[in-house]
Amino acid sequence: MTEDGQDAQDEGRPRHPLTGRAESTIQARLLTRLRDDGPLSRTQLADSLEVSRTTIAVEVGRLGELGLVHEVGPAASRGGRRSTIVDLHPDLVFVGISIGATGMTVGLTDGRLAVRAQRSCASDVREGPEGVLECAVALARELLAEIGVERPVGAGIGVPGPVDFDRGISVSPPIMPGWDGYPVRDVVSRALGCPALLDNDVNVLAAGELHAGVARSSRDFLFVKIGTGIGCGLVVDGRVYRGVDGCAGDIGHIRVEETGPTCACGNAGCLEAFAGGAAVARDATTAARSGRSPGLATLLAERGVLTAADVGQAATHGDAVALELVRESGRRVGQVLASLVSFVNPGLIVIGGGLTGVGHSLLAEIRSVTYRRSLPLATGNLPIVLSELGDEGGVIGAARLISSSVYAAG
Amino acid sequence: MTEDGQDAQDEGRPRHPLTGRAESTIQARLLTRLRDDGPLSRTQLADSLEVSRTTIAVEVGRLGELGLVHEVGPAASRGGRRSTIVDLHPDLVFVGISIGATGMTVGLTDGRLAVRAQRSCASDVREGPEGVLECAVALARELLAEIGVERPVGAGIGVPGPVDFDRGISVSPPIMPGWDGYPVRDVVSRALGCPALLDNDVNVLAAGELHAGVARSSRDFLFVKIGTGIGCGLVVDGRVYRGVDGCAGDIGHIRVEETGPTCACGNAGCLEAFAGGAAVARDATTAARSGRSPGLATLLAERGVLTAADVGQAATHGDAVALELVRESGRRVGQVLASLVSFVNPGLIVIGGGLTGVGHSLLAEIRSVTYRRSLPLATGNLPIVLSELGDEGGVIGAARLISSSVYAAG
Repeated sequence: MTEDGQDAQDEGRPRHPLTGRAESTIQARLLTRLRDDGPLSRTQLADSLEVSRTTIAVEVGRLGELGLVHEVGPAASRGGRRSTIVDLHPDLVFVGISIGATGMTVGLTDGRLAVRAQRSCASDVREGPEGVLECAVALARELLAEIGVERPVGAGIGVPGPVDFDRGISVSPPIMPGWDGYPVRDVVSRALGCPALLDNDVNVLAAGELHAGVARSSRDFLFVKIGTGIGCGLVVDGRVYRGVDGCAGDIGHIRVEETGPTCACGNAGCLEAFAGGAAVARDATTAARSGRSPGLATLLAERGVLTAADVGQAATHGDAVALELVRESGRRVGQVLASLVSFVNPGLIVIGGGLTGVGHSLLAEIRSVTYRRSLPLATGNLPIVLSELGDEGGVIGAARLISSSVYAAG
Repeated sequence: MTEDGQDAQDEGRPRHPLTGRAESTIQARLLTRLRDDGPLSRTQLADSLEVSRTTIAVEVGRLGELGLVHEVGPAASRGGRRSTIVDLHPDLVFVGISIGATGMTVGLTDGRLAVRAQRSCASDVREGPEGVLECAVALARELLAEIGVERPVGAGIGVPGPVDFDRGISVSPPIMPGWDGYPVRDVVSRALGCPALLDNDVNVLAAGELHAGVARSSRDFLFVKIGTGIGCGLVVDGRVYRGVDGCAGDIGHIRVEETGPTCACGNAGCLEAFAGGAAVARDATTAARSGRSPGLATLLAERGVLTAADVGQAATHGDAVALELVRESGRRVGQVLASLVSFVNPGLIVIGGGLTGVGHSLLAEIRSVTYRRSLPLATGNLPIVLSELGDEGGVIGAARLISSSVYAAG
């Protein structure tokens, strides 16, 4: 709507997903400001959004009627008439659903994305979307009942595979048979009675880092997830950048060699087929069977199968072969990151995902190669750090993405 | 300033470079809208900027007093009171200065960045900044005198080397001895009596493509310049993205091999040391001397030195060695582009720069390798095309960058 109430001019404008009314960038900016900066006085809101106090009063009134904001008392006097402090409404709750290959975490956040309740459980994406999403929705409902909120204002969902962001569906996910084309977003939206949004796990984690992680003060950074596979979230000017088809950040399938082991995607030579967690486990198993590493052979005999975490453990205990496998992964990832650093000149790189459990050997190798191969100007002040967020990273990230959409700033 | 005139609240806000007053995003959006969309009625402006007609009337009045906009008559009636058409002032002139290694083009544009006058001349950046910039300023003054405008509202400058964008200086430019740390922006600003802005030639050309080239309808694209060296302009959501230190797009120094010919930057293995125009000329000279290519040997004997353009000419005439050199360059560039496509998922790639004179063999090879090595989702609809802008590309691009800054939208 226009700020002076000429609603007749609204026709043709996009509708706000929550209110059904024409989108107002002023409302969106106001809500986002309260989300990121906390309670502000009407005067501060008018100043920072560069609109009149009258406009702020009108918009705060409207958002109040919608139950999105409320007034919490008078501001400290700056001389003259006192302003009023505005905050997001305490009943405003987002659901964040973070689905991994073998487990999920579901959480609730308030309007400023602080986690109010969270629960994790085991689940296997290979069993298909119906069961997994039923479980996620059941967890969300339990948590909502516990805090006494009937209906969340939005739900964000992250899944470990490619996503058609605009349509809210999974697309040919290699490790998620049965999910291809499944309307994840709409199923969750219907079940919880609120708008929902689906993204891949790496973008969700990048959004989590942006809001509550080591990247909180950074507006331009890369989040690199090294798990079973490898992916990258690209944050540009404070927003997750998805590219024109929504598949930006798919660095796991950058071809680093002309030939090589076959990747989960069907091609050969992909980064993740050399350096992902599955590749490290595969090479460790080969080394154990060939007798090159007695340590890995013992682990394999004990457990029947080796994981990347086992390799990390062996490396930590001084197994030379395991250590070399970790370093080789870091070297490959660093080579690709060096190119990306020359290309986008980020301010920070955050490394996350399961393989980071192997500790600082991986990080040290990534740092060494990335710094050595990038231009000095781009790496002069480029921290490369491990993520410090646990399971709540996915919850906060998913909540952040849906909040931006609900607040219409996304 | 705030829209209802509370100028007392302005303190601490950035000042507009042109007016010295606190920046108004409403003014910036209004001016940018007129630049990109042409004359609009006050009602259309109010609708599209989502502010009241009263606010538009106030801002148009202020911008009119500053000589930035004027009213050009009544709009067609939509029923009710007629609105008034607003346009950028016809005396509003930007200077675009595009400096190359061996020549420069200087032009004047109107507020909507249409070129009003333009002139090119030979000049050698190796002679240092003083003479080159004196020549550029003299050309600009000649053109201004011809169209009868005393003072431009801003000047944009592109140079063929790295730039510290915020400080407006050249930084360690390999092919521009004597320019390191030279205050290019401030020298031009003082000489022409207007705000100025300095960027590298690739970003300037990317801005030109965005405004008037094949990328006009694209908001997310790569502009790849293959000249003596290789660089890339990255446009994200309709704006040139410079990264946190201003060196985004420096793809010429991505390391594509562990070893290789020494690059102008001093390292080995850089893309441009394999595939740039200088590298192609170097390899052609070797081939001519070794007797592998009689065609290139004849050209070398005639001219004493071979350029990339000579190689292109020989390739066009069917010289197999020359054709292979062009293809090898395209193959290397394509390999790097494939990685960048997986990473940022652009909607378009525009190839420009001197080496494109070698014609479509280069483009064909770049296309083939990029499409083959990127994920299908990212290349399903990814045109890779040659730039169609001539010298005016640099002029329009430089004018676009300074206009965004002057209009305070940059």
